[in-house]
Parts: sequence; C-alpha cells; structure tokens
Amino acid sequence: MRLGVCYYPEHWPRDLWDDDARRMADAGITRVRIGEFAWSRLEPQPGQFDWQWLDDAIAVLARHGHGIILGTPTATPPKWLVDRMPDMLACDEGGAVRKFGSRRHYCFSHDGYRQECARITMAMAQRYGHNPAIAAWQTDNEYGCHDTVLSYSDAAREAFCIWLAARYGTVAALNAAWGNVFWSMEYASFDEVDLPNLTVTEANPAHWLAFRRFSSDQVLSFDRIQTDILRELSPGRDVVHNAMGFFTDYDHHALGQQLDALGWDSYPLGFLEMFPFSAADKLAYARQGQPDIAAFLHDLYRGCARNGRWWVLEQQPGPVNWARHNPAPLPGMVRLWTLEAMAHGAELTSYFRWRQAPFAQEQMHAGLLRPDSAPAPALAEVTQVSADIARLGPTGEGAARVAIVFAYLSEWVTQTQPQGEGASALWAAFNCYRAARKLGLNVDIIRPGAPLDAYGLVILPCQPIVEDNFARQLQGFTGQIIIGPRSGSKTDEFSIPDNLAPGPLQSVFSGVVTASESLRPGLVHQGQGWDIGLWLDHLDTQATAELVADDGTAACYRAENIRYLAAWPKPALIAEVMKRAARDAGLEVVRMPKGMRMRQSGNYRFVFNYSAAAQPLPDAISGELVIGDRLVAPGGVAVLAAG
Amino acid sequence: MRLGVCYYPEHWPRDLWDDDARRMADAGITRVRIGEFAWSRLEPQPGQFDWQWLDDAIAVLARHGHGIILGTPTATPPKWLVDRMPDMLACDEGGAVRKFGSRRHYCFSHDGYRQECARITMAMAQRYGHNPAIAAWQTDNEYGCHDTVLSYSDAAREAFCIWLAARYGTVAALNAAWGNVFWSMEYASFDEVDLPNLTVTEANPAHWLAFRRFSSDQVLSFDRIQTDILRELSPGRDVVHNAMGFFTDYDHHALGQQLDALGWDSYPLGFLEMFPFSAADKLAYARQGQPDIAAFLHDLYRGCARNGRWWVLEQQPGPVNWARHNPAPLPGMVRLWTLEAMAHGAELTSYFRWRQAPFAQEQMHAGLLRPDSAPAPALAEVTQVSADIARLGPTGEGAARVAIVFAYLSEWVTQTQPQGEGASALWAAFNCYRAARKLGLNVDIIRPGAPLDAYGLVILPCQPIVEDNFARQLQGFTGQIIIGPRSGSKTDEFSIPDNLAPGPLQSVFSGVVTASESLRPGLVHQGQGWDIGLWLDHLDTQATAELVADDGTAACYRAENIRYLAAWPKPALIAEVMKRAARDAGLEVVRMPKGMRMRQSGNYRFVFNYSAAAQPLPDAISGELVIGDRLVAPGGVAVLAAG
Amino acid sequence: MRLGVCYYPEHWPRDLWDDDARRMADAGITRVRIGEFAWSRLEPQPGQFDWQWLDDAIAVLARHGHGIILGTPTATPPKWLVDRMPDMLACDEGGAVRKFGSRRHYCFSHDGYRQECARITMAMAQRYGHNPAIAAWQTDNEYGCHDTVLSYSDAAREAFCIWLAARYGTVAALNAAWGNVFWSMEYASFDEVDLPNLTVTEANPAHWLAFRRFSSDQVLSFDRIQTDILRELSPGRDVVHNAMGFFTDYDHHALGQQLDALGWDSYPLGFLEMFPFSAADKLAYARQGQPDIAAFLHDLYRGCARNGRWWVLEQQPGPVNWARHNPAPLPGMVRLWTLEAMAHGAELTSYFRWRQAPFAQEQMHAGLLRPDSAPAPALAEVTQVSADIARLGPTGEGAARVAIVFAYLSEWVTQTQPQGEGASALWAAFNCYRAARKLGLNVDIIRPGAPLDAYGLVILPCQPIVEDNFARQLQGFTGQIIIGPRSGSKTDEFSIPDNLAPGPLQSVFSGVVTASESLRPGLVHQGQGWDIGLWLDHLDTQATAELVADDGTAACYRAENIRYLAAWPKPALIAEVMKRAARDAGLEVVRMPKGMRMRQSGNYRFVFNYSAAAQPLPDAISGELVIGDRLVAPGGVAVLAAG
Repeated sequence: MRLGVCYYPEHWPRDLWDDDARRMADAGITRVRIGEFAWSRLEPQPGQFDWQWLDDAIAVLARHGHGIILGTPTATPPKWLVDRMPDMLACDEGGAVRKFGSRRHYCFSHDGYRQECARITMAMAQRYGHNPAIAAWQTDNEYGCHDTVLSYSDAAREAFCIWLAARYGTVAALNAAWGNVFWSMEYASFDEVDLPNLTVTEANPAHWLAFRRFSSDQVLSFDRIQTDILRELSPGRDVVHNAMGFFTDYDHHALGQQLDALGWDSYPLGFLEMFPFSAADKLAYARQGQPDIAAFLHDLYRGCARNGRWWVLEQQPGPVNWARHNPAPLPGMVRLWTLEAMAHGAELTSYFRWRQAPFAQEQMHAGLLRPDSAPAPALAEVTQVSADIARLGPTGEGAARVAIVFAYLSEWVTQTQPQGEGASALWAAFNCYRAARKLGLNVDIIRPGAPLDAYGLVILPCQPIVEDNFARQLQGFTGQIIIGPRSGSKTDEFSIPDNLAPGPLQSVFSGVVTASESLRPGLVHQGQGWDIGLWLDHLDTQATAELVADDGTAACYRAENIRYLAAWPKPALIAEVMKRAARDAGLEVVRMPKGMRMRQSGNYRFVFNYSAAAQPLPDAISGELVIGDRLVAPGGVAVLAAG
Repeated sequence: MRLGVCYYPEHWPRDLWDDDARRMADAGITRVRIGEFAWSRLEPQPGQFDWQWLDDAIAVLARHGHGIILGTPTATPPKWLVDRMPDMLACDEGGAVRKFGSRRHYCFSHDGYRQECARITMAMAQRYGHNPAIAAWQTDNEYGCHDTVLSYSDAAREAFCIWLAARYGTVAALNAAWGNVFWSMEYASFDEVDLPNLTVTEANPAHWLAFRRFSSDQVLSFDRIQTDILRELSPGRDVVHNAMGFFTDYDHHALGQQLDALGWDSYPLGFLEMFPFSAADKLAYARQGQPDIAAFLHDLYRGCARNGRWWVLEQQPGPVNWARHNPAPLPGMVRLWTLEAMAHGAELTSYFRWRQAPFAQEQMHAGLLRPDSAPAPALAEVTQVSADIARLGPTGEGAARVAIVFAYLSEWVTQTQPQGEGASALWAAFNCYRAARKLGLNVDIIRPGAPLDAYGLVILPCQPIVEDNFARQLQGFTGQIIIGPRSGSKTDEFSIPDNLAPGPLQSVFSGVVTASESLRPGLVHQGQGWDIGLWLDHLDTQATAELVADDGTAACYRAENIRYLAAWPKPALIAEVMKRAARDAGLEVVRMPKGMRMRQSGNYRFVFNYSAAAQPLPDAISGELVIGDRLVAPGGVAVLAAG
Repeated sequence: MRLGVCYYPEHWPRDLWDDDARRMADAGITRVRIGEFAWSRLEPQPGQFDWQWLDDAIAVLARHGHGIILGTPTATPPKWLVDRMPDMLACDEGGAVRKFGSRRHYCFSHDGYRQECARITMAMAQRYGHNPAIAAWQTDNEYGCHDTVLSYSDAAREAFCIWLAARYGTVAALNAAWGNVFWSMEYASFDEVDLPNLTVTEANPAHWLAFRRFSSDQVLSFDRIQTDILRELSPGRDVVHNAMGFFTDYDHHALGQQLDALGWDSYPLGFLEMFPFSAADKLAYARQGQPDIAAFLHDLYRGCARNGRWWVLEQQPGPVNWARHNPAPLPGMVRLWTLEAMAHGAELTSYFRWRQAPFAQEQMHAGLLRPDSAPAPALAEVTQVSADIARLGPTGEGAARVAIVFAYLSEWVTQTQPQGEGASALWAAFNCYRAARKLGLNVDIIRPGAPLDAYGLVILPCQPIVEDNFARQLQGFTGQIIIGPRSGSKTDEFSIPDNLAPGPLQSVFSGVVTASESLRPGLVHQGQGWDIGLWLDHLDTQATAELVADDGTAACYRAENIRYLAAWPKPALIAEVMKRAARDAGLEVVRMPKGMRMRQSGNYRFVFNYSAAAQPLPDAISGELVIGDRLVAPGGVAVLAAG
C-alpha cells in the first residue's frame, strides 16, 4: 500500500512547494492528489487558460518522486460559468435553487454543464495526459456530497421524462408498472410526468424509485463523459473517483465498474457523529470512531470496485470541521486507520490534507501540517506507519468466508418506504457486518449476483428487490444463508410480488410472509438476551422456529442451510443468529473483546484496539508478533504472522 | 348495524369481481363502497367517459345483494385536468404549489375546479342516480386529509377577500373588529387583505380566525355543490362524506348538517401513533389503540350528524402504511372495534379495504384479503362479528346523561393562540371524555346550542368563544355544569370581552378571570393526587374553592350547580372533578379497570377489554351475558342484557 | 431613576385619556412613551396627515406632568406604503418574502423605504420637535426583533455589493481576503457576489462575516437617517432606541454611540423560556427569571451606551404572550426588577404597557391595568417602588472592578462557525458574568478597547477576533486577565492568524494553540468539581497548568497575571477560575446564596432574592438597612447603606 496526500498548490506561495514536496517524501508519501477544486485558477476567464502554475507544481512534486493524482475541477464550476447558464444549478426538494458560493453547485442532468465538463476535462487531459508524473486521474469530487444527487430542477425533469420513455417504451407500460390507476395518477404521455417532490402527500413509491434510479444513472453518465475522455487522452493511467461514507444516492457498484479503482474518503469521527449510531457508541468511540465504520466501508467499496482495486483518497488526520462536534482522534488513530485500510487491501491511503488551510470553509479541518507549517500530530503517525508498511511488505489477499449482500437499490426502497422509522437496508447491513466482525471474521460485502463460491455463509440483511437470477444462484449455494426481513418483498417496480414476500426467494426458503409490522422503540417481544423490535415479518412456513421470544413469537426460522430472520437485525439478535450460522458454516470464530477487531490478510492477522484502554490479545489469536505487543495500547495495532 | 367494505374494481382483473362479491357476502357484508378515486378511468380523456367497467362492477356487486355506496372521484382530479388549470392546485403555508402525484391536489376555492366537480358529479348522478343498486353517495374523500383545508393560493386569496366583504360589509368594520389599529395594520379596501401566512411575526389572531372560518366555509360550499346535484338526480339515496379522526380544520357540525349521515374513517392504531398521546399510552395500546380514541370520535361525529345518523366508512383491518410505526392489531381488535361502533349507534361499519393493493402508495395497508386473495386475519373477525351483530339484533338508543360541549371554533382559537404549548380545546375535550368514560358513563359530545334536556351533567372543557344564546341556555340548565379554563375568554372576533373572561358565562358563574398564565411541563402546584399545570386562570369570585393545591392555589371553584375549573383538565385533576360532578348529578358510576371500557346501548351493556391481559368484569356490572364471558379476554368483548 | 410607561392613545377612547394620565401620575410615573406603531393613524392615506389626535394626546399627558418619549412609527409601515413599493419587504433565508400583516415588514437596505422613513420622521419632528412636552424621541422599535436584521432581498443584495466595493476597493482584494481560491469561489467583479444564503453547503465564513457586518451597518445607517433629522429639528431632546435582550445581529456598541441613551426592553420570564438556559433554571426561575438575565443585559447595554446613559424602555409587568409558556411573575418581581435596574444605573424604567390591549397580537400581554381598566397586580408594585426610589434618592455610581469584554463581532464568528454545537461567544460571556455575580462582584461589560484603568480583573470570555491595539492595551494592563478559549483565533477576515491562536494575544500570553477540538455533551475530562467539556484548546506554552483534569488535560494555564482558559467556561469551571482570579486581584468577594444577588451602587448595596423562599442576608453583607429586612422575602429586595 502506498501513502498519499491531498495538496492544493494554488493555496500556497510558490516558495513553499519544494519544501512541502520534500517533507512529504520524508514522511513516506509517494502520491499527491491535486487540482480538483482549481477551475477558477486554471481558466480564470472563459476560454483563457492559465496552465503555468500547474505545470510548475507538477514539476516540483515530480522532482521529489511523487506520482500525481490529478483531479478534474468539475465539482467547483467558476462563477462566470454559472452566470452564463444559471439553469445549471440544482434545485432542492422544496424547489429552491441551490446557489453558487460553496461547491457541487450543478445539476447532473444539465446538458450545457456536461459539455463544459467535457471541455475542461479534455483541456486538462490534452495538456497532462502523457505527462509521466501523472499517475492517475480523479473525476470530480465526492459525487453526492451535500445531497446533490437528487435535483429537482427543470433540467432534471426534462431528462427524467426522456429516461422514462427509454425505460418503459409506452406511457401505458409506465402506468401499469407503477399502478397509477390508484388515485387516478395515470399519465397520457411521458411529458406529463413530473418529479415526485412537492406532492400533497407522498408520491407513488414506484415514481420515487424510478426517480432514484434515474438520478443514479445521471451520475454514472456524467462521470462517463470524463472517464471516456481521460482514457482516450491519457492512456495507462488509473481513472478513479472518491466516494464518501454511508452515501447511497447513486449506485456505487455501477460507478465502480466504470472506473479503474474506486476511491473513498474516510472520516471515522465525523461519520460517527453524523450518522445514526447509538449515543453510547458516540461517546465511547468519539475519538476513535466506532470500530466497524471504516472497515465496513473498506469492504463495501472493495466489493464495488472493478477487480477489487480500491483506494482511500482522503483519510482524516485530526479534527474535522463539518460534524456537530469535532473532537481530536486518540493518539495513534491515524496510524491505526491506515493499517486497517491496509488490512482490507487498499492500494493507497491518502491523507486529507497536507497543510491545514487558514481560510475559507475548511479552516478548522486539520492537516498533516498546521497552518504555520509546523507538524500536526498526524505527521509523526504517518511517518511511523510508513515504516510499519515497509516492514510488513505485501500482505497478500484477505480471503473472506462470509459475504454480506448489499444493493443500493435496497436502500432506495427502504428510504422511499420505511414503513417503520429506522428500517433501513443500509443499517441492517451494517448491523450484520458488526456482528460478524465481533466474531473475528473477515467479511466481503458484495452485490447481488457476485460469485459466491468462496463463501461459507451468505447474508442478505434486507434486500427487498431480488432478481430471479440471484434467487437461482442462491438456490444452488450449499453454504449457510441468512435472509433478513423485507427481503424479496418488492418487485422490480416496487409492488408486492404475486406470491408475496419473500418473492423469488421462495425458491430458496419455503415460506410466505403473510403480514409485516413495524414496532415503535420499546415495543418488543422479549427473547433470551435479545428481543424482537422495529420490524417483524409473520410467516406461514414449515421451517423450524429456531429463535422464539418468550411470548412465542418467532424471530428466526431455519430450514436446512437457510435461516429466515423474521425480525429486524438489532445488535443482540443478529449476534445470536450470526453465531449459529457461523458455527453451522464451520467457520472459526474469535469472540473479540469490546472495541477490539481483527482482519486477516494473507499471512497476517491485524488486530486493532479501538478502545480507550490497553487490552491483551485474546488467547485464540496466535502467531508471531511482527508489529506491536500482546498487550495492545489504546489506539494500538498488533500484527501477527501465522505460525 | 350493517357491515360494508371499500372496493376498487378498477384495481383488479374482471375475473376476480364475482368471486370477491360472493366472498364479501359470505362474510356478512352487504354494502360496498366504490368509485371514489376512479376519475382517470371514468373520464380517461377530457369529455370522453368510459362507464362500461363501472356499470359492470355495480351489476356484479348488486347480483350478490350488495348495496353500493358510490363515491365521487373529486379527491383525485386526473392529470389532464390539472394541466388545463394549474392554478387549481393549492399552496402550502410557505407558498409552495402542492403538485399532482398523489391525491387531494386542489384548492377548495378554485372556481374552475368547482365547475369540473359539478360536471363529473352530474355525469355520474345522471348515469347511476336511479340505479336501484345505489344505496348511497359519498362526496369526495376525507376533506382536509394531508392538511388540505388551508390553502394559500391566489384562488384562496381572492375568495377570502370576497368572503370578508360579505362578513364585514365595510373595511372599516373589519379594521375595528380585528383591532387593526394595533401595529398600523389597517386596510383601505378588502382587496388589500392578504392571507395571514408568511408575515414577519404572527399575524393578527383575528385575521387567522377569519381565515379559518373562511377556509371551513369553502369546504362546506364545495361539498354543497355535489350534495345538491346528487339530491336532485338521485333521490332517496343517502349522501354522506367520510371525515377523518382528530381533524378540526373545517366545522364538522356544519358539514354534518348538510349530509344525510356523517361517515368517518377509524384507524385507532395510526391515530394513537400520530397524535399527542403519552409515550406510555403509545406503548401500552400500540396494538389496540388507546381505549377512548374510537369511542370519542364515534360520539363526536354522532353529535355532528343530522339526526344522529353516522357511519364508519373505513375501519382499520390490520397494519396501516401511514403512521411512523405500523404494528398489527391484537387478535380480536377488528371485532372489538366493530362492536364498539355498534354500541355507539353506528348504522354501518365498512372495512378499508377488501384486498390489499400490491402497488402504489398504500401497498403496505392491510385489507380483509391479502394481495394474493388469501384471507387476511381480519376476515375471520368480520365473519364472527357479523354473527355477533345478528345475535344481538337492534340495540336501541344509547342514552347519555353526560354531555361534553365541543365547537370546532374553540380549537381554531387555541391553535391560533395557544399561549401555552399544548393548551388545545380538542385535547381538553378528549381528557374530559376519557375521565367520564373511565367512570363507565355514556357521553354525548354536542355542539354549543344543542338541546340539554337529557343531561344531568354538561361540560365545557375549553370554549373560548361563547355566544350569548348559549350562555342563556346554560343559565336555565339545572343539572351540573363544569366550565373549563379559557372558556368565554374571547369575543366572536378574537378579542378579550369587555367584562373579561368568562365573558357571557359570567351570567352562569359569578366570577371574573383577572389573569391567566401558562406553565411549562414540571411547573405545577401540587394537589392531593392531582396537580395544577399547563394553564391556570386566576379568579376574582365569591364561589367556593373546592379543590385547592398545597400552596393554596385554587384549581376548581364551585357555586351551586356550577364548577369553574381554573386549571387545565390534566388527567388526574379532571378525573377528580368529574367524579364529584357525576356524584352531584346523581349519576351511577362504575370505576372501570385499566383498559376496560363500557357503553350502554338500549338494553345492552357492551364491555370492551382494550388491555393485553384477560380481566374480569367489575362486580358492579351485572346482567345476562349475551356475548362473551365475565372473564374478558384481551381484545375481547362482553355484552350483557339488563336484568 | 424615573418611572415611565408605554401608552397607545390611538387604542383607546379619548374619554379615557385624562383619567389614564392622572392614574399614571398617581403611581409615580413621569414619562410616557407613545406613537411608535401609529403610522396608519398619523398618515391614513399617502401624504394626508392626521395630527389632531396626537396633538391632543400629548396635551392631555403633558397636563398631568408627563414628559413624552415620542416614537417614530417606522417599524410598522402602513399597507398603502407597502403596496406602493412591495420590494421593500425583506426576504427570509429561504428566499420567501416576509409579508405585511404584523410588524417590522421592511428591509433595512431598501432606499425607497429609507426615504419614506425620513419623510415621516421629518413630518413628526417638524410638528413636535419644539413641543416642550417632548422629552425624548425613540427611533423605530426593537431593531432586529423577529430576525429582521438579516434580509435576503434584492435590495439587500444590491446594497451588499456596494458595501463590499467600499470595504475592499478591488475584487481581487476581496478574493484574497476571503480565500476564494478555495473551491474556485473567486469573483471577477463585485456585482457577481451574491448573498451567502441557499448555497449547496455552507458559504465561506468570510462571506458570512462580511454579510453580518454589512447587515449591522445597514441598521446603523438606517437609524442615523432618523437621528440626524431628530437632532436637527428637535434640539435638546434625547434620541434613543429600544434594544431587545440577547439579540446580537447588529452591533449595539455602535448603535449606542450614535444615540443619546440606549434603551432596552426587559422581559426576564420570556427570555428565560426562549433562550438556552438549563431545564433546571427554567423551572426554578420560571416566575422570577434566572437572576442574572436582567443584570447581564443592564451591564451590557450600559457598556454600549454613550456616556453610559441607558434606559429600560419596556419592563415586563406580568405574563407576556410570546414565549412558549407564559407564567405570571412571583409577587414582588416587578418591584425587584425595577430596583435591579436602578442598582445598575438606569435613568428610566418604563413599563410595557399601561393597559392590556384586548385585541390583536398582544392581547395576552399583561399591562399595569387590565383591559377593563382595573389595576393589574403590577400597578401596586409600581406605586411601591416609586416610593422606594424616592426614599433612596440618588444612588451614585456603581463602580465595578471586574470587566467582561464582549464584542458583537465575536458572536457573529461563533454563530458562523460554531465548530462545536453551543460554543457561542455570547453565552460564554454570560457564564463568566454569572460566575462573577455569584461572588457578589459588580461587573462592567465593555467593548474591546474601552478604558481598563478602573479594573482589577478583565475577562475575555471568547473573543476570536482581537485587534492589535487591544492586544497592546492588554499588554499594558497590570491587573488579572482571563483569556477564554477561541480568543485571538481569527483574523479580521475570518482566517487563522499566521502565528495561530491566540494571534495578537501571544504578546499578552506566551503560548500557541496547536489544535482545538469540540466535545459532544458527556464527552468530558473530569476535574475536581468541574470538568472540561464542549471545547478544548491544546496549547504549546511554558505557562503553568493551573487546573488539570484527572487524566492530565490542562483546563487553565497561568503565567503571572494572565490566565488562559483552554476549556469552555462551563459553569463549574469558570466559577473555579473566577474565584482564583478575583482572589489574585485582591477583590472582596461574597459567596451569594442560591438565587440571591447583590449590586453595589454608590453608597448602597442592593440585595435581591430571586429564589422562591425567604433567605437571610449573608453575614458578610453589612450596613444599615434602608429598604427591607435581613430576612429577604421571596422576590424581595434589601438595600443597605454602607456603615
């Protein structure tokens, strides 16, 4: 794994560049990401380019051996461009125009802006495409950040109508597919279809789902404009993009397939604060991040990436500026996070950013240097982890025997129709992941339809839409399977299947969901150390009720190698089910101490102590210590080589 | 009482219709409600009607003996109509247009849409008005659902100006009535008056009250267009509408007077979840509904209905789709709810809906059948309750000796000027109702001015505006009276009366409210088992302070047969006051066990167990068991005939 | 100190005026504030003035010896004016027009409206400027109330561009100052700069800060139009304005400098309910107001006022109408609040309002009279306090040895960039004030740069932007200094200083803030009776760590006479620091009992009992009792003359 850093030469006096490049190299960094917000400096006026500064910056960095990851600046169109085509701005769900003044101020559907993006990308690729210092290209920046995938602009509406026509062929087919006879919502032409926002009460969920699919497709085609140009004009370079964490508004599996490697931006503390973790976790892990956040996203994006090639393009190095509260990481965490990425197979970990900017929106976001160029605490950890990486050498593959199946489509369904507050496919998957990881298991997170041969246990945490092909694939799978609630409960057009849930999965598990209910917090069926809450499917099945609450309600059914989890995978329940399934799959498990996690990668076992106290390695974890100690410090890492 | 069901033949293949109609009849159903969302199928293109499918559906249903309740489809104007007059759409309080794509997408004040409603109603009435299968007509659907009474559109504004001119005659009269001299809000003409939304701080409460009255009147005149046509073209049929629960944006008393019977839609679990019940009640009754929800609304709408004729047009049969959480009812609840409606005098209970729709917005809303046509749990309960009803025969009148007075106007006042968060006239009435019902009392909920002869106890929970006539009527009433806080505190134009609160009621109760205060949760004057909280009127009166808090603050005054409740009717306080008033009125009370409720109807005493545990009938409830047992099952019912 | 009252002759029949004026005088009132909402009565139609009623009202009041405080009515432009220039209305942050129908419906930046304000002010000044009854003028009413300082209208945008040009000279200078290279936010001309609302994610904080400064400046120039006219046309009269409590959207120091005296409107109960006080305080002081609310604002506005001349222009006399809950004050509180104002040096306390209006928005706001003209409870307290004041005579100056430095600019910075939820400069200052006052200390609240000679202890609770001059002034100060967190952390253009925080204060305190972090509630470093929470600066310094948490984290450093408080001034921590600093400053402290407060004024010590129980004076408070007793009643006051 290489180390990298995000750098903005345009923010600094030229006389700092050389020293910066040297200090980066001294810390073990070999990749520098630049350029992705610099449009106003590359093209200060329409058509008038200023390449000199970038030429020079690249030359300086290259002189110190750095490979450049060059970003296209399309996340920040300059003011003159926006003023030329103000209708390129997106609109929010309430209809308000989302104005210039920060970033990501564009609608993915605007043709004029797409042409401008092609133009600037082409100009950059023509100038730098064959520059030997250019190691890779990054398209745009964090698609979807700040809720920018869904736009309610006129441009989006027009594009949606065209997309619908392509999908459905005739408007009668659309009406039938969506069930528009309900509430007289039938259309006479595609032009009549509006976006699903601002309706009196909720719009048809099939309407929403189409809009979600369309919106995701717009991201993909927007990105393809750039990747096509870059591949043609800069052959041999990786084209990547940097995804964010827990963002689901576009299909990352699809994006991953059109890139050479999928990057993502890892901010464990910010994510902990801003996403729906428990208050207890938010306190206990305020300085470390809940121990499965980064790991889950590593495994998710590895599963999205073509050939499994993935990078951490931005790694949190200290306090950030954008969460409600922004604590400093525990000493050691920057190193720990880096080694966790390595353990999961990252090709790159790139820190965001080199030097803390003293101005503008992110001035409270730490870097490896302080604004006064003195080292920030993270720099020493980077230097240390660079040595760690060198010592370990290549780790080999991190084979997993457990697969969690996740589709972005699933989350679109549960967001569109929660039916019970909190019943989200994404967080169901996270709960399953955490349960497996607490058992010391390596996990892959895969898309429906990915090969299953390697696995002994496959989990569908909550997959409302199941294709027939995938059901057939599962039918042929002989390992253990856990099917979570709501799975197979919807057709591809957001209806209830003719044979009811679990729909096509009835060929895998013989049973019918006769009714589903959602339960408010506190409304539970108590079991032995777990309970049924949030969601409950009622089944008509001959399968054995394997886990039954005190009042006789079944939480989990089993028939041969298949478990149907009828209740929501709340932590205690999914832990119990996972334990049983892992045992039945013959997987070796290690009950990890609180806050401690493990990942096996090739010959190495990486053990991470996310807790704030020193903890001994569990006896079950043996091997020769290559890094660290059997008493693992808070925020510490131990790496053992198999005996 | 008849049983009915809501049915959407347009949703299903024709070959299901006959079997559906037969199975309905087998379950004891004799009324089928259809048509109310079918505009796009009745008139697929402007002026081109397709009656055939509806002709056939009616014929099939009639063949199985069903009387049809035919709905006008005006809650769901088709897209082509909206596109012809886009200004028919309502606007929300923030000014955003409420778009097509769900239902109720119209402004009550739009003349063009009113003409379209007249046209489609006339077309339907001409075709089916004399069809012997048509038993009744339902106008539109759930006026006010999704906050649709108050519209801030241009059409509403124009109509409001006209309405104001009619009410006030001169703009000087309006200025004087509203006190517009305050803050220089005076108008020079009616045209200058805008809607009261989007003002810098709150608009004049008199302005709001006028807008509330206007908006309610618009619903009434909108409805009258249809009722007039239907009465003329379909003589002898009942014309009804289906109200919702706890909706107060239009005057249901007034609507009830222009209909033949008032229907309402009973969703006890959804209402419990979405309305301000305590967290404890939301948990304890998650599967049953708090025991007074349906009963309160039965009694409220019976009091609204002309000649007391009222129907349950939609009865929840299982989980719904629209609450935050949607649990399944406890087994037996569908039967219990049906018998509760019977006990309160309903002429019809109609289940929503026959078969769960697998598509569109309500696909997670249960029916009597599952989407695959297999029986859902409710169907057996319907069949059972149909037999129960047959066994009981006609029950006779449910005479009440307690009347709670409620005016929609009261709630408009407290919503416009809460003065203390939560001080709502509606929920004050509910609290009083619950207290009476816990004493086993039959209760009528009546409008101010309704005859009082039958009652021994009359309660005004919180009635800010009191007409002189009503005060005179109360003066002549010799039974017990409870006057709640804020009563008589406002003139008809939302001012403080010259003689201060309780204004005209000073002729009934000799005292003056010298000051009122509202109290944050936790700020209480502690009494003996009750406390003073939320609201407190300070009185200058010679009446006896009957209930006095430990610190000497009076909660309730008494003078002869009148009690003035100076503090908010919080549950424990109103229970104490109600107990005393019932005693003084000589009413026989039965302290009902937790979760158990009773309603006497003619010769029968219906006892309902809303709790989740079996409970014995209290000894005080005697009589011969016609249905059930003295140990009443959870969700069970016992009916006793007077000895 | 004089007593006054707010009166609205236009609300009442003329035959009440004389009696009203007489009763005011009987209660000890000598000032009457009138006119400030009466535009529609002064100019019912454009250009047609009706002065007669105001002539008469002034004459009647003057006949009873009252000096008039005459308000310009520009907070309530009449409808005809708004209809002539609808673009004078402000827009909210979402872009919605803030309509006519209440008050403050104008944008400070609208030139047309400014001209209209000049016109009406001139007309009033011409008519009454030399009238001997006119004692003072009040401009407009409560600038900023209802969030009206920040407007997002076209008028505001245009004025902002002009303001920017004046501030920065060239757009290149603006781009450099704001760091617009970040995210390609660079502008090519001032015209391109939009307001910072509705951006995709947050706008540049420097952009926001400029907009905050601009918006504040607009208030100042708006006000100056009137003050200039009034000074010219009505010489010898005080020109004042009435500020509100805890409003920070414009610079009250600057406004104070352009007025003769600064007024403010004191609503202790409403403020307690609506501002972020603890739930415990909201309950304990619901009827009294937290004991430091009025005192803090007295001292703040005294510090803002030119020559320290300040008035209470509106004093809460009973329940108000605008808080979430509106309890009645404890008996005695109106007197207590009045004497607290006197103790802090007010020249006037004027009650709002004379008679409770029975109509319009404030009908639930108590007055000194009830709507029926009977005395409300406050009238007797006013009469009593009038006698108290007479008995005390002039009190002399209330010299303070403690100064808290507060700049409105500080609050704009922390609001723009909280970085940790709740980290507000205003509330940091309040916490420091409360801690000092609990030690019985007189406190001045001063602007940065005010003379420091009088003080033994100076506190900068949280002052992100520090001018070099002020740093130099502090360098020369030999008393004790407490520097709070975030101080000196920003340049004047919202960047991090080159030498990092505390920036210019490094010349005062030798240390560098190497990192800052914010901590969610519950995430603390526990100390001895205090803890570190919410915010923590990490320092590189040779200063002594004076307060260290159990885990070794330093909360407060000390070097000679300077303390750097690295952690947020939460109550327990700042209490500990304040105690030490006061001791080191040689200040005599008196640990005040819970709910009891003291203020020394000249020869008098005023002691106030804000608690709901009688409490004895602490032994340390000696002197001859002039008012009250050593056992101070709840809501009671004791005044002692130094022995």
